[in-house]
Amino acid sequence: MPSIIPIDDPDDPRIDAYRDIRERDLVGRAGLFIAEGRVVLEKLVGSTRFRPVSLLIAAKRLASLDGLLAELPDDVPVFACEQAVFDRIAGFPVHRGILAIARQVDKPTPDALLESAEDVLFLSAIANHDNMGGIFRNAAAFGIGAVLLDPDCCDPLYRKAIRVSVGATLLVPFARLDRGEDALALFERHEVASVALSPAGDTLLHGWRPAARNALLLGAEGPGLSPALLARTRSLRIAMANGFDSLNVATTSGIVLHHLSAYRV
Amino acid sequence: MPSIIPIDDPDDPRIDAYRDIRERDLVGRAGLFIAEGRVVLEKLVGSTRFRPVSLLIAAKRLASLDGLLAELPDDVPVFACEQAVFDRIAGFPVHRGILAIARQVDKPTPDALLESAEDVLFLSAIANHDNMGGIFRNAAAFGIGAVLLDPDCCDPLYRKAIRVSVGATLLVPFARLDRGEDALALFERHEVASVALSPAGDTLLHGWRPAARNALLLGAEGPGLSPALLARTRSLRIAMANGFDSLNVATTSGIVLHHLSAYRV
Repeated sequence: MPSIIPIDDPDDPRIDAYRDIRERDLVGRAGLFIAEGRVVLEKLVGSTRFRPVSLLIAAKRLASLDGLLAELPDDVPVFACEQAVFDRIAGFPVHRGILAIARQVDKPTPDALLESAEDVLFLSAIANHDNMGGIFRNAAAFGIGAVLLDPDCCDPLYRKAIRVSVGATLLVPFARLDRGEDALALFERHEVASVALSPAGDTLLHGWRPAARNALLLGAEGPGLSPALLARTRSLRIAMANGFDSLNVATTSGIVLHHLSAYRV
Repeated sequence: MPSIIPIDDPDDPRIDAYRDIRERDLVGRAGLFIAEGRVVLEKLVGSTRFRPVSLLIAAKRLASLDGLLAELPDDVPVFACEQAVFDRIAGFPVHRGILAIARQVDKPTPDALLESAEDVLFLSAIANHDNMGGIFRNAAAFGIGAVLLDPDCCDPLYRKAIRVSVGATLLVPFARLDRGEDALALFERHEVASVALSPAGDTLLHGWRPAARNALLLGAEGPGLSPALLARTRSLRIAMANGFDSLNVATTSGIVLHHLSAYRV
């Protein structure tokens, strides 16, 4: 178990990585990300793909985290401070008083993920962190093996995406395709059936019977998946009431993944 | 069509109702609410249950709203100002440049809604505006006739709930039960079958076949519905992967409403 390093001065350079994290979140930092709260920290500590770099804990939370801290490697610094100092460091009130800086140590390729996952999600241009987090939360809830992202998707390791996912972006493995890489050809090579979700889909979702392995394709609300991609794959639509043809993309993922898990062959 | 009233001074008392709306949103204002953006404004103008009190429009948006403004009663003031003045009035950048103050003019009772709606949602202790908005969006998408709220639910007319719902809180009629009012007895009186959603539900959702009329009961994530209520009604659960037994309540509503609409008798 690492030793606890007390921090009294909000300007202490040792905790620079935690300074004004709301701002930093907007710009991102190469290879590092911020995890918040106990549930996310548990997933981080239990992960083989990610590794904590350091922790910043409000003193009042230390006792309740005892067991979890004991699982950390000895060389991970655990900084501890009073809540008021914590909030000054972070730049806003962090009621949960638990932050970690972490790093991705294992970056699987799309091919590697497709070799092991049964079903996968493929996301195109999902640029909203709430939606990204919500989709990963559903992927974890329904046991999806991997998420593949096109180059226009936002980072699942952004602070808000992790938080909204309840830590699922640390659980469900993901990989990003290169620009111009043909997702459908990739799925075909791995003998995974591609199925696109679209308001203009050919078939109603509830009549769909999944194949042995499925890649479910989701695009951003509004623009949706590209016509070029839709022209090359089977597509499903969700029947909706007249005049309000609008579902959130994370909700759509939940509906489709529930159907897949209920009717999986 | 109302005449346009130009506003040059952000401190003009005629637009006091729009001042620092982010703060006001937190405290609420008896009987009035704020609608943002074109899509929501369309639903407001088309509604019989709500009535616009006034509008504040960025000058650059006026031309594109011409048709919509023509549908307004003549006595609804339409204030117009430059975007910079708009943002100073509102207290933050409102890129869409479209705000309205509105009032609920028709408040149906739970009994009145149950007389006309086929299926209804009953929400208990949904206190998060994102979730409230998401649930209404799904209710509209799947054509649910009414939403009933217990006294611990937040207000579907809060700015953020309306925005997240894409205006659905202005479309799907809702009513709030009094504290202590027995929701299950109410549904029974109207011959509507009650079905609760719970992670500990008796039956898997995908095996459920809806009755002619259904009341779907949803509680807040975490605490869920009260054991007293669950003991008195049929309950459904959504099958999830081991170790991540967690769905967002708005996503849950989407999954259940999709099932209901697909298998409605």
